[in-house]
Order: sequence, then C-alpha cells, then structure tokens
Amino acid sequence: MLLSGTVIVDAETVIDDGAVVVADDRIVDVGERAACLDRYPDHERRAYDLLAPGTVGAHVHSVQSLGRGIADDTALLEWLFEYVLPMEASLSAAEMRAAAELGYLELIESGTTTCIDHLSVHHAEEAFEAAREFGVRGRFGKVMMDKEAPPGLLEDTDAALAESERLIRRYHGTEDGRIRYALTPRFAVSCTEECLRGTRELADEYDGVTIHTHASENRDEVATVEEETGRRNVHWLHEVGLTGEDVTLAHCVWTDESERELLAETGTNVTYCPSSNMKLASGVAPIHDYLDRGINVALGNDGPPCNNTLDPFTEMRQATLLQKVDRLEPQALPARTVFEMATINGARAAGFERVGALREGWKADVIGLETEGLTRATPVHDVLSHLVFAAHGDDVRFTMVDGEVLMDDGEVLVADAAAVRRRAREYAADYDAAH
Amino acid sequence: MLLSGTVIVDAETVIDDGAVVVADDRIVDVGERAACLDRYPDHERRAYDLLAPGTVGAHVHSVQSLGRGIADDTALLEWLFEYVLPMEASLSAAEMRAAAELGYLELIESGTTTCIDHLSVHHAEEAFEAAREFGVRGRFGKVMMDKEAPPGLLEDTDAALAESERLIRRYHGTEDGRIRYALTPRFAVSCTEECLRGTRELADEYDGVTIHTHASENRDEVATVEEETGRRNVHWLHEVGLTGEDVTLAHCVWTDESERELLAETGTNVTYCPSSNMKLASGVAPIHDYLDRGINVALGNDGPPCNNTLDPFTEMRQATLLQKVDRLEPQALPARTVFEMATINGARAAGFERVGALREGWKADVIGLETEGLTRATPVHDVLSHLVFAAHGDDVRFTMVDGEVLMDDGEVLVADAAAVRRRAREYAADYDAAH
Repeated sequence: MLLSGTVIVDAETVIDDGAVVVADDRIVDVGERAACLDRYPDHERRAYDLLAPGTVGAHVHSVQSLGRGIADDTALLEWLFEYVLPMEASLSAAEMRAAAELGYLELIESGTTTCIDHLSVHHAEEAFEAAREFGVRGRFGKVMMDKEAPPGLLEDTDAALAESERLIRRYHGTEDGRIRYALTPRFAVSCTEECLRGTRELADEYDGVTIHTHASENRDEVATVEEETGRRNVHWLHEVGLTGEDVTLAHCVWTDESERELLAETGTNVTYCPSSNMKLASGVAPIHDYLDRGINVALGNDGPPCNNTLDPFTEMRQATLLQKVDRLEPQALPARTVFEMATINGARAAGFERVGALREGWKADVIGLETEGLTRATPVHDVLSHLVFAAHGDDVRFTMVDGEVLMDDGEVLVADAAAVRRRAREYAADYDAAH
Repeated sequence: MLLSGTVIVDAETVIDDGAVVVADDRIVDVGERAACLDRYPDHERRAYDLLAPGTVGAHVHSVQSLGRGIADDTALLEWLFEYVLPMEASLSAAEMRAAAELGYLELIESGTTTCIDHLSVHHAEEAFEAAREFGVRGRFGKVMMDKEAPPGLLEDTDAALAESERLIRRYHGTEDGRIRYALTPRFAVSCTEECLRGTRELADEYDGVTIHTHASENRDEVATVEEETGRRNVHWLHEVGLTGEDVTLAHCVWTDESERELLAETGTNVTYCPSSNMKLASGVAPIHDYLDRGINVALGNDGPPCNNTLDPFTEMRQATLLQKVDRLEPQALPARTVFEMATINGARAAGFERVGALREGWKADVIGLETEGLTRATPVHDVLSHLVFAAHGDDVRFTMVDGEVLMDDGEVLVADAAAVRRRAREYAADYDAAH
C-alpha cells in the first residue's frame, strides 16, 4: 500500500508532500510522494492530510472501559474501592470481553496502535482474545493481587503466578509478535514480597516477557509501602527485582532524589499519565527531572474511569500543559518531546523494536489524520505542534498495525463498532439499574 | 421548531426523553417529548442525542485566530511581543475580517453561542460586521492601548476612547440585542489612568455597556502595576473604576486576600481560562476561593495562539482537572459547577439575562450533540459528567442562537465554512513565507 500526505517521520523529520510505502508488515519506502509513486506505481493507494506513526499508550486499562464515567468527581479511595475494583471483580467473562473490545475499539479509532495494558485478576484471556481479533499491538498482563484486595479480586500467590505463566505460554509472541506478555502485579500495596519476587523470576525465565506495574502514584500508597517495608517504594521495588530496562512503572509522581537516581541507573521506564494524575488529584510527576536524568518517559491515558478517554492527542496536550503550569515555565516539555514520549519512547517502554517512527524497515504502524475540513486545524503552522496542541482522536481516519489496515476512511474493519458500543451500553444500563 | 433528545435544562435538571420548543427568539416549552409533540404537532422537528444550553466563552480573542499555533512552546514575553501583538498590528482590514470569521466559525461549530470578545486596536468594526453576519451573541470591544504597546498598536488616549464611543453608538444593542459592547482596555500595564477612568465614564454613560479586561494573569504584570501605581492590580483597577457587576476580569491568577475580598464586595465577575494559564505557564487561579466568596466565575478559552482551540468542552475538562491536581482534591470543581461556569455564570458575566439554560421564556440558544456513534461516549452514566469529562466540540451538530439556526446537522448555514478556512490558510502561508 502507498500512503500519501504530509509525512511525520518522527519528531525531527517531516516530509510535506510525502509518501510511505508498506509491504507485508514493514515500511519499505518513505520519501517524496512523486518519487514513491514512480518506484511503486501499482500499489494500492490511500491519501490523508497527515500520516504519523501510530501512538503508543504505555499505560492503559482496557477492561475498565465499561466503567467510563462511573465515578467522576469522587475521592480516590472511594473511586477505587467503591467503584472501580468492585466493577472489575463483578465482570463476567462475556462482560470482560465486551470491556476489552470497547477499549481496543477506542484505541484503534483514536490512533493508538501499541499499548501496555493492565488487565484484571480474572478473565484476562478474554482481553487477549479480543486484542488478537482486533489486531492491536501491545503488552498485556493479567493483574496479580495476593494482598490487600477487595472481595473477588484477592487470590493465592501461587495461583496468581501460575495463571500468569499459563497466559505467557499461551499468548506471548502470538500474532507474529504483536501480542506480548507483561507481568502485571497491581502495585506494591496489593502484592506480597513472594508475588513480586516471583514476577521477576518469571520475567527472567521467559524470553522477552516484561514487567509493568503502578508505582508511587499517590502519597498514601508511598506511606503504606514505607510503613510495611521500611523502604521508599522504588527502593522496595528494586529490592524485589522490579526495576530495569524490562520494567515500566506507571505514574512515579511521588519519588525522592534517591529513587530518581535508582530509576535512571537501572534504566527503568516511566509512564507519565497526566489526565489520570489530574483527575484523581494524585499530583504532578517530575517529568523534567526524569528526562534530565535520561530516563525513558512514555505517555499513557490510564483507564476510562480516570481519564475519561483513551485519546492519545488529548493526553499529549495535557502532558505539556500540565508541566508548563506546574513549573511556571512556558517552554517546559515542548511538542517534539511530547510526541516522542507518545511514540518512540512508548515503543521502547513496551519493548518493541523498530516501532514508533515511519522509517524504512520499521514496522508498518501508521495512522492517517484529517485536517482539511477542520476549523481547529486552521491554520496549521507546524504539524508536530498541531498534533500536540490542537488535534484530536476524532481526526484519525486510518489506522494500520503491522501492515494490516484496522480502520480505513473512518470505518473500523476488524470489528462491528456499533455492536461493540451497543453491548457496552446494555451493560451500563444494567449497572446503573443495580446501583 | 421542536428539538428532541436528552434535554440538559441546566446543571440540576435533565429530561431523559425530552423536548425544547422554540418560537421566534424564545424557548416556549420544555418537557417530556411526548407531551411537547402533543402540544406542538406541527412544528418543524430536529432530533439530537443531547440538547444543552449553548455555552458562553467569557474571554476570547476571535481576531487572534489566524495566529493559532504561531508561537507554541515559547516564553510569555516572546509569545506576546514577538508573535501575537505584531501579528495583531499587521492585520489589514480584510485579514481582521478573515480572522474574526474563523473565530466565530469555530465558536458556532463547537457549541459556543455567546462570547466576550476582546478584539484588537484597529479594524474592530470588521469583527462586529462578522459577528452580525454569523449571528453569534456576545460582548465585543475594540482593544485600547495608550501606553506600553508595540509599534502599530499604540494610540492616543482620546483617540482610543473616541473610537470606542463611535463603535458603541454604531453596534451596541444591534441584531435584536445579540451584539453588545464591552469596553476593553487591554490591561493596566498598557493603559494610562486617563484611559481607564475614561472607560468607566463611557460605561456609565451608555446604558448596558460593560467592561472587560485582563487582570493579574501573570506575576510580572502584577509587579509592574504595583511598581507604577503603588497598589496591587485589583486595588488599582478598583480605584480607577474597573470593578463592579458590569466588569469581567479575565484570569485573576495572582490575587491576594484583600483583592479577593474586593472582587467579592464589588460583585466583579472573573473569567477562568485554564488552558491559557497552563500553556503560558501563568499559574493556577484560586477558583475554589472565588466560589467560596460568592464571586461569579465564568469560563474562557482565551485566544487560539494560547489554547489552541476555542472548544468549550476541552475547556470544561481542563477547568476541573487543573483544580483537582492543584488542590490535590479529587472532588474539587465538580462537573456540575464547571457546567454552570460555562453556561449560566458566563451569561451573567457577559451581561445577558435569560441566557444560559433551557428554560421556558429564556432565549433560544441551544446546541445539539451526538453521542450514539462515539466510542468515547460509551457508556454515558451521567450526561452532565459526560459533557465535562469526555465530550468534544466535534460532537456538536446543531447550534441555534436567539432562535436562529446557525448550524444544522453539522452544516454551518451562516457562512461558507470552507471559504473561511481557505482564506485563513492563504494568510498563514503568506505569514510563514514572511517569517
């Protein structure tokens, strides 16, 4: 396929009248449109105003999608223990499938091609099956909670690790490597030392399996871990093996100097989730400091109950605006840096190589956006800046992952989008009636 | 016209299967759909998923629309003096018209029916003419700068006031009262005492004319005013007559206890502009404190160079998220309060009565939104919360002001939208070539 438009190769390079040529799962050519047309005259064609690398949502809870909006404007503990976790615990296998499908549909429609997806304790295979069917690329993991969990989510340490191992064997590396496993203990508060150490052992045992968890999102969480372990959270995670280049920690809002040093030394990845940190009033992550130390920072929308959307463009805008106001520095986290966080940094955090830029030989994860008919895209002085400050998930009209077209001219090809939404609304009606 | 859908009457009342009936410029009935259909069987009909009061953008710079994205990620003084003010100064009458049209087009398309619009020093009548043609409701004012202005914008005090008076006589109260005048000195730093006192005199002389200016957006601005006048900014404005129920001050980020007391005592309106305050790294306005004191707080997008959109839904979301994270309080500024700020509080700030809610006898300023086809509107547990946390200007498909349909089923009826965008893009191409 030959895709033409203004090509955003990466944060540094834009080709105004360009093209991207795809064969099988790879980009085989990127350049001026006229030259590409000469070289590939017979390829099927598509034209969009902007072509960009698919974004990477480096911390998402697809299976919380049915809970979009169930707990807006509530305090954190109420949000988690009265609404979100009970909802997760109550989902049947069919509802978990419906939730995952709704999540992946939103990712595809709004231009996220790779995710790191923190599933739930039960029915994780429903999300794996949905991800395979919908064709998204990502890291997926069954959540482990063997301590401090609400009814219905608490499980034995051995059972949590055994189920994780079963899912690794079944799904890790499937769909030509699009589907990969991340071990996902929920967070230090809800996992025993045995569970966390067992997580590291499994990651070392299975080639290419990574680790993804929440860390230091909230001050109470940090205090609890310190009380229980005598250590700051990141030090505790380090002691039990949960730092390193194969680990991505979501949030990292409340870290001290020594923890930041440790994150940098160990090459641990951090996912910045600005909308979630704002909505749940968690705080502002010290992103500037992380970047100065050379830490790889990715971007994530977190789950629909704490965002309320999975739109990566909303999140890019939020990422820079929050840092600017927090530091009272209008040049903090400029558009190019944010765009890298949402693409190539995210791919690195998710452990995918040759993903996150439109370069020859790289994986064909491409999105196409409209600008022509949009007043808020008028004028566009700089396309990178436009993507971060004014674009929106709704502008995405074409989504390709691994060379497969998932959405073409606004139509999702891999699912019956209306049916996915209908099932979610039926669930919501039942939920509202029962609450 | 009989409009049916889920009717958001105001922040307190929602009718699930409701209708709004409009005759001439007024809402004549609001209630259950079936009952309205019985009472008005012959009215022309429209159906939308959600019907809401049109929003009020209580601080906007429509004529900066051509500068959308010209100065992203730049420091404040550079932003203002190197980019935005020189651009304003350079606009010809035709360009000012094109800029205003682009701004009003974006307002109509994204659901803002009333604005308080801070124009520019020159060619303000181009914006008045555009506003009349496009049919938006609002307060509009020629900017006055008789001190501390860049080349091309500095003017004589007498000339500034005389031109304002000429525009009041020509436009104030036209279009059946849709178009009203607000005197708009840019801010204390750029206006002499004579100009500010003259502003109050004109406001008192002409019935229904109000005052709108920027105040205490930035720490340097506050320091400059204090140095020049020996007073905190709001005290200075009060001394020269720029407080009161007919005054709306945009921003008010950096106010002290005594200034807040003064704002409350005088009934002065405040416009909160969260995206702008974030992007320009101005700071976080103490909205909670203002509301506690009973100050009327409205919401504004400010101009496209500092936002970069005029989408009121983006701004509502930003309004609550910023307060939550700033106060580390997840229940800060809940959706209902934000919605009031964007509707009924805005109408009060703009000095329009019976505007900002869908009530019988009130002005027919109505917007219709789509949710059915949107994954990010799936599910919707609470429509008010959905509007604030997940809706987007793109979802608006119908816009009515004063009973006149400006947009119907997504098609703007009062302008050639493609031509407006084309002119703006031509300007941008020239601008980019010259810079």
